[in-house]
Amino acid sequence: MPSLLKRILFEVAGHPNERTLTLSSASNDGHFISLRPLVKPSTEAEKKFPFEWAFAGTNANIKITPKSEGVAAQDFNFWFDANVYLNVPNTHRGEVNTTWTTWESGCIQETGKVFPFGKDKEGVSFMELWQPVDANRDELIITNDANSKGKSIVFKVDNAEYEGLVIVVGKWTQGFLSKKNGNSIEGLNFLRLLERESGKVEALVDYGKDAQKFPRDFANLKKGSSVDVNGLTWEVIEYTV
Amino acid sequence: MPSLLKRILFEVAGHPNERTLTLSSASNDGHFISLRPLVKPSTEAEKKFPFEWAFAGTNANIKITPKSEGVAAQDFNFWFDANVYLNVPNTHRGEVNTTWTTWESGCIQETGKVFPFGKDKEGVSFMELWQPVDANRDELIITNDANSKGKSIVFKVDNAEYEGLVIVVGKWTQGFLSKKNGNSIEGLNFLRLLERESGKVEALVDYGKDAQKFPRDFANLKKGSSVDVNGLTWEVIEYTV
Repeated sequence: MPSLLKRILFEVAGHPNERTLTLSSASNDGHFISLRPLVKPSTEAEKKFPFEWAFAGTNANIKITPKSEGVAAQDFNFWFDANVYLNVPNTHRGEVNTTWTTWESGCIQETGKVFPFGKDKEGVSFMELWQPVDANRDELIITNDANSKGKSIVFKVDNAEYEGLVIVVGKWTQGFLSKKNGNSIEGLNFLRLLERESGKVEALVDYGKDAQKFPRDFANLKKGSSVDVNGLTWEVIEYTV
Repeated sequence: MPSLLKRILFEVAGHPNERTLTLSSASNDGHFISLRPLVKPSTEAEKKFPFEWAFAGTNANIKITPKSEGVAAQDFNFWFDANVYLNVPNTHRGEVNTTWTTWESGCIQETGKVFPFGKDKEGVSFMELWQPVDANRDELIITNDANSKGKSIVFKVDNAEYEGLVIVVGKWTQGFLSKKNGNSIEGLNFLRLLERESGKVEALVDYGKDAQKFPRDFANLKKGSSVDVNGLTWEVIEYTV
């Protein structure tokens, strides 16, 4: 079930806030990407890298276990994690165990614990609140149904030089592309595209030196095919239109 | 500034949840109403009275004091409070002091304390999170701008038999009508209307024996005029179209 979730709240250690316009895309086959750009970057460091975080993975990187009506465990082993890539100190490494509870309102509460100081040290509890939005519309329209149906396309690259994943869900596209063996923001690229009702495509996030290597044309492809974009070959690992 | 806020989260004593589809309407002149219908009433009592709460007031019932950039105190002395009307035990009486903080994401965090066991007893902290939505659209569309501009109409009744307030903000109407000297749900009426893009008006909430006394036609009126609806006379106290 392709879905697009907008984060409404991020609470760490009892302090709720939301400084980003975070969207998490999940494809029909269960591949996923979450981009968390800051709405109002303020420091010089934030202006240079205006993201709280980003992560992505294929369906091999997540295990979903239904627990009870409206409750599921989701265990993540990210393929890409911006904090790991940038080697940010005091951030979590390894599997993240979370619990997702759908409220009667339709919002989904995610709770979990991360271990920024190591698995043997004290953990930090967090809560995130997700609002399902309609991926097939070009505005952020609140919906009770996290299953957006419709278009679900995924591109992947994993060669000697690059790793990358691009997920198209309805009118919303999100992608990352990272240069292997780099550990600085110079090696990171992020993309968020929005197809307007008119058909015009708008780039809401278009970050990084290699951003021109992202696929931006999704017509007439098929699963198992590949596309070359300015010298980079992406594999189409999912294609439902 | 007319606004329409959708509640996303209600947290009491550290337990976040959201069982309602709560909308709070504020008119251009600062009159307000908040209706909190349950999404999935489950018990017999909930099915009979499917509301968590409802309150309303004119701009004489609220004091707003800017505190700093994006932060304001709001002190409520409700004109109508469903808990007071129904004499629900262990619920707050008198002024409620709250703090409203606008996050960078555009959501607004409300925090405060209520005193369900009396002002001299221990208080209970709460937090509510509000998502501004576009009152001029017939879907719940996330917006960063809490000021919806456009239509703002308010009807009031306060006679020997009834108290009531109806607020139209954009395409959304909310109202209450209570029978004086009643203290049971038999005396309560609530209305939530939505004008679809087609012009057709849909009743999302239409509750109570006297609901047919609510005004439902808002054309060609003016401030200071009055309208009769099935024997009840409402005063138009605000009219901007």
